[in-house]
Order: sequence, then structure tokens, then C-alpha cells
Amino acid sequence: MVVDEDDVPRLRREFTFKDFAQALAFTNQVGALAEKEGHHPALLTEWGKVTVSWWTHKIHGLHRNDFVMAAKTDHLAT
Amino acid sequence: MVVDEDDVPRLRREFTFKDFAQALAFTNQVGALAEKEGHHPALLTEWGKVTVSWWTHKIHGLHRNDFVMAAKTDHLAT
Repeated sequence: MVVDEDDVPRLRREFTFKDFAQALAFTNQVGALAEKEGHHPALLTEWGKVTVSWWTHKIHGLHRNDFVMAAKTDHLAT
Repeated sequence: MVVDEDDVPRLRREFTFKDFAQALAFTNQVGALAEKEGHHPALLTEWGKVTVSWWTHKIHGLHRNDFVMAAKTDHLAT
């Protein structure tokens, strides 16, 4: 979903896991994708849950690339 | 510092790093500590920054252990 934070729209999705270790493993998977693509999200890792937010700093909003990265993130979770 | 989120006080501190990879490495260090101690924070990983929040779900607030974990987190960052 699209949420506004600090007046900047972001693509946000919450992924659930069975424990903290699984959540952290997913954070690392998304982190590796981010490094590979040179575009970095905010990753909130909690027990059994990772919330991933994509947006583009430079334009203070959403770029096509954010939607591509969000789709790739969804794919990692499947 | 102590912040309120969803009416629950949390110990929150922001740690800065030179890039995303260093931030993610710190997230993993804190994650390993959390697993070892059986107490888990919220870890917000962004480019060059990790925000760590400690609180105790069961009491909807802060327990002595949260302060201990926050001190151990500070120690990891040094």
C-alpha cells in the first residue's frame, strides 16, 4: 500500500514470519537485492515481521523503480 | 532516548554508518545479540542508519532488561 511519512509517499508492505531469525533472514535477502540494484528501502525488522518501505529520496516520492523493487521484494517472499 | 509509540514507552537510539552494507551488518550484530539473550528489539535499517528500539511487549513498557539490552547495543556500536 502507499503510505505518507514525512509528507513523502512510500510503498509499504508487511511480511510475516514464524520467528525473529526468519524475519532477519528476509531482511538480509532484501538487503542483498537492494545492494545489487543500487536502490535501498527502509527495513523494519521485528519478531516475526519485516516491514519494507520503498521510495526515491531524490524526488521525495515514488518512481517507477520503486514499484519494480516492491515487486521483486514480493517475489523474494514467495 | 525514551519515545512513546502506540502509547508504549520504548528506548530508542539511532546509529549511523557510512553506507547501507555497514548498517545491515550492525542490524545482524544486534540480531545475533537478541537471539542469544532471547529478547528482541525493533530494528529499522536504512541507508547509513539503524534505529534500534527496545521495550517489553508483556508489560507494554520498559523493564530493567531493556536498559541492559540498550547498553549492550551501544557497546556493539563502539
